[in-house]
Amino acid sequence: MGATGVVGQHFLRGLVDHPYFELVAICASDARTGQRLDSVKEHVPGGIPAEFGGMVFDPLDVEAMLSRGAHIAFSALPSDIAGDIEQRAAEKGISVFSNAGAHRMDADVPILIPEINAPQSALAITQRRLRKGFIFTNANCTTTGLAMALLPLISLGIRKMVVASYQAISGAGYPGHSAMDITANVIPYISNEEPKVRRECVKIFGDVEGDTIRPRDWEIHAHCVRVPTLVGHMISVHLDIEEKASLEQVESLIENYTPPQQVAGLPSAPSQPVLFTRDPLRPQPRLDVDAGDPERARGMAVTIGRLEAGEGVVRFLTLSNNLVRGAAGGSILNAELACREGLL
Amino acid sequence: MGATGVVGQHFLRGLVDHPYFELVAICASDARTGQRLDSVKEHVPGGIPAEFGGMVFDPLDVEAMLSRGAHIAFSALPSDIAGDIEQRAAEKGISVFSNAGAHRMDADVPILIPEINAPQSALAITQRRLRKGFIFTNANCTTTGLAMALLPLISLGIRKMVVASYQAISGAGYPGHSAMDITANVIPYISNEEPKVRRECVKIFGDVEGDTIRPRDWEIHAHCVRVPTLVGHMISVHLDIEEKASLEQVESLIENYTPPQQVAGLPSAPSQPVLFTRDPLRPQPRLDVDAGDPERARGMAVTIGRLEAGEGVVRFLTLSNNLVRGAAGGSILNAELACREGLL
Amino acid sequence: MGATGVVGQHFLRGLVDHPYFELVAICASDARTGQRLDSVKEHVPGGIPAEFGGMVFDPLDVEAMLSRGAHIAFSALPSDIAGDIEQRAAEKGISVFSNAGAHRMDADVPILIPEINAPQSALAITQRRLRKGFIFTNANCTTTGLAMALLPLISLGIRKMVVASYQAISGAGYPGHSAMDITANVIPYISNEEPKVRRECVKIFGDVEGDTIRPRDWEIHAHCVRVPTLVGHMISVHLDIEEKASLEQVESLIENYTPPQQVAGLPSAPSQPVLFTRDPLRPQPRLDVDAGDPERARGMAVTIGRLEAGEGVVRFLTLSNNLVRGAAGGSILNAELACREGLL
Amino acid sequence: MGATGVVGQHFLRGLVDHPYFELVAICASDARTGQRLDSVKEHVPGGIPAEFGGMVFDPLDVEAMLSRGAHIAFSALPSDIAGDIEQRAAEKGISVFSNAGAHRMDADVPILIPEINAPQSALAITQRRLRKGFIFTNANCTTTGLAMALLPLISLGIRKMVVASYQAISGAGYPGHSAMDITANVIPYISNEEPKVRRECVKIFGDVEGDTIRPRDWEIHAHCVRVPTLVGHMISVHLDIEEKASLEQVESLIENYTPPQQVAGLPSAPSQPVLFTRDPLRPQPRLDVDAGDPERARGMAVTIGRLEAGEGVVRFLTLSNNLVRGAAGGSILNAELACREGLL
Repeated sequence: MGATGVVGQHFLRGLVDHPYFELVAICASDARTGQRLDSVKEHVPGGIPAEFGGMVFDPLDVEAMLSRGAHIAFSALPSDIAGDIEQRAAEKGISVFSNAGAHRMDADVPILIPEINAPQSALAITQRRLRKGFIFTNANCTTTGLAMALLPLISLGIRKMVVASYQAISGAGYPGHSAMDITANVIPYISNEEPKVRRECVKIFGDVEGDTIRPRDWEIHAHCVRVPTLVGHMISVHLDIEEKASLEQVESLIENYTPPQQVAGLPSAPSQPVLFTRDPLRPQPRLDVDAGDPERARGMAVTIGRLEAGEGVVRFLTLSNNLVRGAAGGSILNAELACREGLL
Repeated sequence: MGATGVVGQHFLRGLVDHPYFELVAICASDARTGQRLDSVKEHVPGGIPAEFGGMVFDPLDVEAMLSRGAHIAFSALPSDIAGDIEQRAAEKGISVFSNAGAHRMDADVPILIPEINAPQSALAITQRRLRKGFIFTNANCTTTGLAMALLPLISLGIRKMVVASYQAISGAGYPGHSAMDITANVIPYISNEEPKVRRECVKIFGDVEGDTIRPRDWEIHAHCVRVPTLVGHMISVHLDIEEKASLEQVESLIENYTPPQQVAGLPSAPSQPVLFTRDPLRPQPRLDVDAGDPERARGMAVTIGRLEAGEGVVRFLTLSNNLVRGAAGGSILNAELACREGLL
Repeated sequence: MGATGVVGQHFLRGLVDHPYFELVAICASDARTGQRLDSVKEHVPGGIPAEFGGMVFDPLDVEAMLSRGAHIAFSALPSDIAGDIEQRAAEKGISVFSNAGAHRMDADVPILIPEINAPQSALAITQRRLRKGFIFTNANCTTTGLAMALLPLISLGIRKMVVASYQAISGAGYPGHSAMDITANVIPYISNEEPKVRRECVKIFGDVEGDTIRPRDWEIHAHCVRVPTLVGHMISVHLDIEEKASLEQVESLIENYTPPQQVAGLPSAPSQPVLFTRDPLRPQPRLDVDAGDPERARGMAVTIGRLEAGEGVVRFLTLSNNLVRGAAGGSILNAELACREGLL
Repeated sequence: MGATGVVGQHFLRGLVDHPYFELVAICASDARTGQRLDSVKEHVPGGIPAEFGGMVFDPLDVEAMLSRGAHIAFSALPSDIAGDIEQRAAEKGISVFSNAGAHRMDADVPILIPEINAPQSALAITQRRLRKGFIFTNANCTTTGLAMALLPLISLGIRKMVVASYQAISGAGYPGHSAMDITANVIPYISNEEPKVRRECVKIFGDVEGDTIRPRDWEIHAHCVRVPTLVGHMISVHLDIEEKASLEQVESLIENYTPPQQVAGLPSAPSQPVLFTRDPLRPQPRLDVDAGDPERARGMAVTIGRLEAGEGVVRFLTLSNNLVRGAAGGSILNAELACREGLL
């Protein structure tokens, strides 16, 4: 659903020859119905894979999907459209893996990042009491990069966070920003982004309690800022922590971090999801945005650099791929997890 | 001194038809001696003013300056060269207004931002006990923008600061960054910049005690980051303050701020040095980098936007012109102040 | 008319304190009616002048303009809208100076560049036989820069032209290009631009014959290409000429060119409209886009560089300001000419 | 030789797991001797392959290479250094595949583009009469893209060419351009580039006559211009041809072009080296720079777009990867050809 945009085209790339999933239908706005995929403007290199080029758009309609034999749906829809159709799809038994924000804060919908909160996938069961399918969302792209970087540090007892982001223009989708606005410029505000970072981050790391998730009580301050890069969200992170960890201890936590069993070997899971560099000039979007293993896990790892620690403070910059780990790749990994866990 | 670089060319622009100062000599590295100014590569529009184009470079030599009748010198030299020659010039009675970092942390040298610490100019007297002239420095370009923005807020009782910068490539001088490194990219580190922000900021707001300056005891955490803009340093600022000021109170402090008497009417002093915007998309380098009054005070004001306050926290983004207020314009304003105060 | 866009805001800047004209009304699409000018998003620095900020938008309606006492109108409208309203305004006696393409190829409408074809302004008389006012257009921004550069060379007998452009994103207006498309990229096509260059160029240099203009018979081949610069169209120009001029002869033509009497002293007319540089690295958009005299003629001159000549060929690159000389400034100069010639 | 720069790192990437070649030594300037490859600053993603990271730099010394068992050498040296060492290596029996310009115009050295002039590889025999090894060069990056695009059109009888380029900053190597110079800017001159395009192009398509190559007698006019893209040289091409081919005929030539037998199946040879698009917005550097087959032939194809033909004229824009096809990949392909032809 929503196969024509920047994230949609990353979904298409990610589904070529996928070992678990077969693409049976592509849906877009009514104006596209009946057109071939390869009539669409390509937004990212390889974004209109030759393998799928001859497929024809269906309308955004659950019956159409079912008639194509769809069991699951990936959603790259704008949030205002996504709410309804994702809900209806789930009711009809289609499990939805969504990049849209519409259902992220629903009490029984997890914001899933398998390395962090695979157990939250249990909410699929909760949802199924109400409808035949379920909805899993991935986090906002900025939240994803931040949460991934916090993953090895969670034992330090985070109290407060002050973050400032350097977000790429692709985060705004297509057409997104006018080139007049962002060429050689910085825009100090991204509509609705800072609240997302605050509320999604604490939910991701929350505990499942019965049928809902109890969020963390971290104090989070965020400035979300657009810079003229194409892909890759950098974040400056300042943490006040409960433990007084030394730099060596924090380095050790990051370098010795290993992802949980649940994700090991999933096609899109990187062997090491949190990379660490001591080069003060890294990470950089141009050089590190595709960090991760070759093939399906390309762009699925985040990179932490410029680590400082001491006196109850941990500081670093982190980079993640907002279109892959922070969008299409994240949702595909969620679906792989659901598949392995027998939820589909 | 150092008239060929990016900042040097801004000094030249700023000295055309200056009401207080007359340019009598231009100095550069030995290789330039005897060449005309207009043989130099222009780095900024208007950076080689026609008025001065026929002037011929002298060597970096105090005697040469004196023989041209120089009473004061503006220095846009690299710090490693600046230390010695600035010292020698001051000893011979030339008052030096320097953009270089070499002497900024000397006990008897002020880092002068007239709106903030005009009284520190009294250190000229202290210095004159040891040498015939004196050295006044302006702050590092990033520090300048930050300090200017703090100016109206100082009564709130700053305890701690977490800042992250979005610095333009011109801050690195010429040639500065390779285009390969920074085109559509972010570089998470600027050598030696973060310590400068920390130590200069607390000195600027320090109190003169006898012959030296007692710095503030603020806790400052800074990430200094390069982004692909040409001119204008943006800074994300998070303040922990002692007073629990409301948003309205903080807005009022900024909007009602008026610069001190000492600077009013100086040719390069903006009538309102700290501007405030409620437009969440502002300030932006492209639109706001030249904030300030027309003519000599163009680019001399900073702009604060996205203000938030409450619960002992004040947050905003601020933009300043790193080449004007943060470099050449700042030094010229310092010289204007010294002139008015009868120090020359 | 059309005061909210990139070109419209340049019109506003150019009309502040204009010695000939007083702004009495601003018109925009109906949705704007009744709003203040300063509620509009600023697209260029100074694009919403404080002097006009409190003015309120009228609808795009000729009666409204007349009721405000408008005698002339500047049009920065999109071409599809401009056709009708410009026509109606002219019928009601308002003289229109338009940046839009709608009427450029009308037989009795000149594409005016005063230094080139001031005599074509006589078509105002022709038009007035049919309607109370008249329409003067300026050329497409790319054509303007090319035509200006050809101006001193016309005596060489141009036979054929092969040009390739490097056009700035502001040429597409606002929002114009998606930043996803043009950041660190080149787009090899600009819709409808190449035909404009071909047909406008030969009309501009055409002779008035009775009530129409006989265009030149030059063979013109153009590639119009977008590059990621903000302002300033560069053009690579290859001319096959009838005369076998040497490099020295061609240089002499350019350097000795003086604009015609009709334009001398007009407020927006540069003293030297065609500048010449021997620096092989110039012109450059960043350094030369504002070429021309200070104040109103800033950005009104074009710059020719990298000149080669010999064997029946003349080659060079030229740069012009697409928003000033190629748009708002050009139309204002046209109005100034009309004013001096007593056509208003 | 010259493994630390932008092109050098592309050579390293291209040699990972190469089926024909094994990397036995890396050479750089003396200052690097003894350092590990992975101590070098990475200029391109994957430019310091983990497979080679532990290798230690040798000096630029032929004996050192021989002692490592080197049979062939790839050279990414600057031209001023390359001349001597490449000559000495060839004398000692090392066959050199060079990206440097030093020997390109030597009478017995071919500028090899296998799809175009594989027969010129016979000059290896000529060279071996004088020395034990030989030198093959690839063309300048701009020439390469142009020559590849001309390949299917050669039967049209090219008489004259007018080209203007849109060259990426990586073409200048590292550090290459200052970011101050090229950010959001265009530079109308690239030192020594236009003569290279003129003389290399006619040599590439020349005929082997005895021991040398007789160049074509085409008239070539080139403007070589830098634009702010990272990778990918676009060229606007205007051809005057002897035959009066229609658009359909020219399209057919391009679409039906098949590469010669000699290159078929070489690891770095794309199955279709000249791609053609009817989308007027293509090619674009961002989307098409990696055209070619997956793996080793990625970035080895050029793309032609915006084709026009008629009246003795053929016009188009073409894009090629200046670091792959125009540099490291081209040299590796040359070595693969030499290998297959038994010249090694």
